[in-house]
Amino acid sequence: MATINYNAAQIEALDRVNRLKLINSITGVKPANLVGTKGEDGIENLAIFSSVVHLGSDPAFIGMVFRPNTEVRRHTFENIQGSGVYTINQVTTDIISKAHYTSAKFPKHVSEFEQCNLEALYVDGFDAPFVGESKLKMGLQFQELVPIESNNTFMIVGKVVHLMIDEDAFDDSGYINLAQIDTAGISGLNSYYSLNKVKDLPYARVSEVPSFK
Amino acid sequence: MATINYNAAQIEALDRVNRLKLINSITGVKPANLVGTKGEDGIENLAIFSSVVHLGSDPAFIGMVFRPNTEVRRHTFENIQGSGVYTINQVTTDIISKAHYTSAKFPKHVSEFEQCNLEALYVDGFDAPFVGESKLKMGLQFQELVPIESNNTFMIVGKVVHLMIDEDAFDDSGYINLAQIDTAGISGLNSYYSLNKVKDLPYARVSEVPSFK
Repeated sequence: MATINYNAAQIEALDRVNRLKLINSITGVKPANLVGTKGEDGIENLAIFSSVVHLGSDPAFIGMVFRPNTEVRRHTFENIQGSGVYTINQVTTDIISKAHYTSAKFPKHVSEFEQCNLEALYVDGFDAPFVGESKLKMGLQFQELVPIESNNTFMIVGKVVHLMIDEDAFDDSGYINLAQIDTAGISGLNSYYSLNKVKDLPYARVSEVPSFK
Repeated sequence: MATINYNAAQIEALDRVNRLKLINSITGVKPANLVGTKGEDGIENLAIFSSVVHLGSDPAFIGMVFRPNTEVRRHTFENIQGSGVYTINQVTTDIISKAHYTSAKFPKHVSEFEQCNLEALYVDGFDAPFVGESKLKMGLQFQELVPIESNNTFMIVGKVVHLMIDEDAFDDSGYINLAQIDTAGISGLNSYYSLNKVKDLPYARVSEVPSFK
């Protein structure tokens, strides 16, 4: 099998679009999530994010990376700064197209829920819209803004204060099986994947490591 | 379809193991990557990470979240701090078990490459081991340590200085298709998935958004 090699200079020498396509794919499969917010003007916003990352379980903290200069993401960021709350909703394979087109640069007065025909769902006392069609939705409270100096991006840390999961998600042992709720994955900027569960492995204890020789 | 709801108090009231299982699954599918490093003592280390995240393409920056108090991750962190370089290697479905068991808490003098029977591969002038079996491997130079105050975790930012990709990864349009190189995904702490490409969508322009009504 032939391997294609790039060194730092060759990566830098790529044209912008080819570098974007390439570098956005190298981390492997990325989670597909829709982030729901509401502005001070009452306008709902919905944006697809592939940069959601687990930070800790106790307390339940989730991170999300924002890049500067992107119109859609700026609306999301402004709304989170204003209201202090937001939702993260897993994209299922049947709403991939609707979810993808939330990334179009709609003007601020336009709701992506409406444009992409997704249901805005509310929970009492929590002022950010969930995505009705999503089978795993969370409500988060803003916790921390973490600047990443290398390239002026930043991470927003939120605490999970609401969690809504279709009961179909749970397998017999009480674990969530993402394949049972049709969770989608992303690579690059515009390729979407479905998932097949192939293996469950136990907690890895040194004394129980199989012989791989 | 019944929905299972948790509020903040109910999440906090879960026992530790059930909360870990649950909260580690809610962000959706996570990338499966092996991080290769070498200590000042010359001992190679290899550890599976599900917290690798794209930060930017120009320059090509990748982030990786570290949690405190985890033996395997401390070795990785110490080695990166010592040598300034590390590798990130995509886990393919045929090495899931080997990759998973790198998370066992082997003593520092033990190489996970050897224990899990994975090939340590070197590139001239770069002192961190790549995983020979991986079909998409990158070499990174340490760039920034980003503290996340909410829970004492931190992100390490690295710049991609080497990239080795099996040519099978590329589809006809020049995009990487992760399904073609059997890239694996993770959910929770121990569930592994294979990927099926289901959709490629164009860059989303407002004027080209389909009618979803």
